[in-house]
Amino acid sequence: MSQLTNIFIMSLKALFLNCTLKKSPEVSHTKALIDKAAELFQDLGVDSEVIRIVDHNIAFGVSSDEGGDDEWPQILEKIKACDILVIGSPIWFGVRSAVAQMVLERLDGSYGDAEPLTGQYPLYGKVAGVIVTGNEDGAHNVSANTLFNLTHLGCTIPPNADCYWVGDAGPGPSYIDAGGDKHLYTNRTVRYMVNNLAYMAKLLRDNPIPTKLKELDEAAKMVSD
Amino acid sequence: MSQLTNIFIMSLKALFLNCTLKKSPEVSHTKALIDKAAELFQDLGVDSEVIRIVDHNIAFGVSSDEGGDDEWPQILEKIKACDILVIGSPIWFGVRSAVAQMVLERLDGSYGDAEPLTGQYPLYGKVAGVIVTGNEDGAHNVSANTLFNLTHLGCTIPPNADCYWVGDAGPGPSYIDAGGDKHLYTNRTVRYMVNNLAYMAKLLRDNPIPTKLKELDEAAKMVSD
Amino acid sequence: MSQLTNIFIMSLKALFLNCTLKKSPEVSHTKALIDKAAELFQDLGVDSEVIRIVDHNIAFGVSSDEGGDDEWPQILEKIKACDILVIGSPIWFGVRSAVAQMVLERLDGSYGDAEPLTGQYPLYGKVAGVIVTGNEDGAHNVSANTLFNLTHLGCTIPPNADCYWVGDAGPGPSYIDAGGDKHLYTNRTVRYMVNNLAYMAKLLRDNPIPTKLKELDEAAKMVSD
Amino acid sequence: MSQLTNIFIMSLKALFLNCTLKKSPEVSHTKALIDKAAELFQDLGVDSEVIRIVDHNIAFGVSSDEGGDDEWPQILEKIKACDILVIGSPIWFGVRSAVAQMVLERLDGSYGDAEPLTGQYPLYGKVAGVIVTGNEDGAHNVSANTLFNLTHLGCTIPPNADCYWVGDAGPGPSYIDAGGDKHLYTNRTVRYMVNNLAYMAKLLRDNPIPTKLKELDEAAKMVSD
Repeated sequence: MSQLTNIFIMSLKALFLNCTLKKSPEVSHTKALIDKAAELFQDLGVDSEVIRIVDHNIAFGVSSDEGGDDEWPQILEKIKACDILVIGSPIWFGVRSAVAQMVLERLDGSYGDAEPLTGQYPLYGKVAGVIVTGNEDGAHNVSANTLFNLTHLGCTIPPNADCYWVGDAGPGPSYIDAGGDKHLYTNRTVRYMVNNLAYMAKLLRDNPIPTKLKELDEAAKMVSD
Repeated sequence: MSQLTNIFIMSLKALFLNCTLKKSPEVSHTKALIDKAAELFQDLGVDSEVIRIVDHNIAFGVSSDEGGDDEWPQILEKIKACDILVIGSPIWFGVRSAVAQMVLERLDGSYGDAEPLTGQYPLYGKVAGVIVTGNEDGAHNVSANTLFNLTHLGCTIPPNADCYWVGDAGPGPSYIDAGGDKHLYTNRTVRYMVNNLAYMAKLLRDNPIPTKLKELDEAAKMVSD
Repeated sequence: MSQLTNIFIMSLKALFLNCTLKKSPEVSHTKALIDKAAELFQDLGVDSEVIRIVDHNIAFGVSSDEGGDDEWPQILEKIKACDILVIGSPIWFGVRSAVAQMVLERLDGSYGDAEPLTGQYPLYGKVAGVIVTGNEDGAHNVSANTLFNLTHLGCTIPPNADCYWVGDAGPGPSYIDAGGDKHLYTNRTVRYMVNNLAYMAKLLRDNPIPTKLKELDEAAKMVSD
Repeated sequence: MSQLTNIFIMSLKALFLNCTLKKSPEVSHTKALIDKAAELFQDLGVDSEVIRIVDHNIAFGVSSDEGGDDEWPQILEKIKACDILVIGSPIWFGVRSAVAQMVLERLDGSYGDAEPLTGQYPLYGKVAGVIVTGNEDGAHNVSANTLFNLTHLGCTIPPNADCYWVGDAGPGPSYIDAGGDKHLYTNRTVRYMVNNLAYMAKLLRDNPIPTKLKELDEAAKMVSD
């Protein structure tokens, strides 16, 4: 019985935001790699949910609710409820998709919703990773910017928190069509990512970051103009 | 007495690599912000050491020892011995300095020196941050790439692990001359960074990442071409 | 009379795509800097048109017509008709806005609409610049990626083809509120940009790039697998 | 005879700066792609010179002469004398090499050596391109930043001014070993680049950019604080 309780307590939730440009039911190569990660999470007892952003009405903006039929508030609730946040993005013109950028911009609104006592933002304590697919070049750029942005929002990044597939120089087949499913480097790094994200998420849930941003703000004011 | 022992065991070590282009004793604005972080670390019981890379003979390359009078091996030893690694870099042409890039390139050699049992690279278990100064624009670029590169090498990045000062658009005074010492945003974020790095370093030292990269490599081979 | 004819022939057209996240009539800081550039163009006899992308229904995608009420086809017509293309973007999370990224992604469709004889893409022969505003840091990143992407699409970039305003580190007032209108560096670079774009546009109109991409493709095939 | 004279006058000079980390006589993959471009230039009557930066004593810094045995002044003379400047760089950690970054930093000193009458920097009127090789991912990042930096220094970037080869995701063979010599995309783009650089260089030599930066500086001061 204590084991059951234990399992219940341990259960972690991973949320994948698939930032493909293509609405369902079009084939998303990024989804294929996300599914692989979700399956590996399952082996570790981590539950996964995947949201395909373009299937929802998400407004451009930098607030948490842009009004009208904006569906961001519901997605933000799920982000706040997860332990592990993974942004999945294709590469276009060497950088992350407009949809991925839109998601980050909407997360800007979360800064304003800080925890009253500590001043920590809603994403504090969450662990983040990134999944990238492209027919060529740009995965480092997408990963670096996305993971960095997420640290600003409060996320922790464990080692090897990115997983990507890209083909060689120039146009060419994408992940599924190129047989990326069998690509050794991608299969290695998706495992590194999933294991490190799960470990770090459990560690942070058991040991929440205690930093009191508000107190540090006060200390900073004392030595600033 | 047990407390003293405890304090001794707990003592964490931060290593700053100052990647300014200017040799001692020239004034380094990046050093000024590094010193501020080091002082804040001291308040938390974290010891700091600062290495100014250009004061040493460091060869271009991607191995851990380029031979001759290459002093990288000694610096690498210090990196391996630290708990917290902070790269300090000025901004030139919108990106990190050539010296910072050279440091990252030399760390490429550390991949080959993995822990035999787990396959973890030497920087696994370390926590990393970045300090950036420039007279304008580029801190996000420097921070994002540098922190991302360090996650590949094994480091964990806690929330708000960057601290920077930049002036407004165009040429202008640098950190010290512009009175950056009194800049509220920089004084806030240096405190966030120092507190989060220290907390995460202690957490990871007490709870080492158990991921067995070698086993995951084997699992990946099973499903790859 | 020949002079009048001459002037008519000489008249160049600049098209600004304002990629702010905010719909009209909200205040756009990027628009304020765009308007300044447009006024300077007028002094040189260059006509300007400004399109605020979010005021139109533009679908995510990488084709030139995503169907439905997609208004991209009309905008693409204007892009094809201009001599000078300037992307205006705010900075969010250190990079260009989701709207700017969406615009680039839509331009991907233009590759397929090459000139039959030479194989040149529709943007060949156009000259491009970039205008960036943000409350801090990121202008180099936005400019570098945007101008580079435009060279892939066929544009030529003259010297000093970017103009930006950013404030110092951290949150703060934007271009208009910060009195960016009076910022010397921005006022210098907007003039460099406008003059160089106008000169290069006239030069390229009088001396079209003759490169036959199709012939080069054939030559490349001869030496490739 | 007039044709011969004409040809003589027309002769353009391309300068390649190979920013590999490896000193001669080590194999440089970047050199192999540079040599291909140089050969294509020769077919167009453009002379090429290749300088391998690490074979020279180049000091870190941002001035045009760092004293001692600094060999940058001689290289800068060659840069000033060329019509076409091409930076060749490998990719390390997703970005350009430390040597390439060092070269850009040294070019910062050229801003101070403006033409007295117009205020144009020494690289005004030159045309620039970039050649990148890496075993994977990062060519867009290297190209975008490098070409953008060169526009700030005065260079013009024609369409398709980059040429790169990268392999698919993860470690793997480099350009030569991977048979990159036969890679269609790279063989196409090197031809686009060479033809466009040559055309634009001749066009700009025959029609020098007339922009008077000094006059524009004065005009900007009139409307600034």
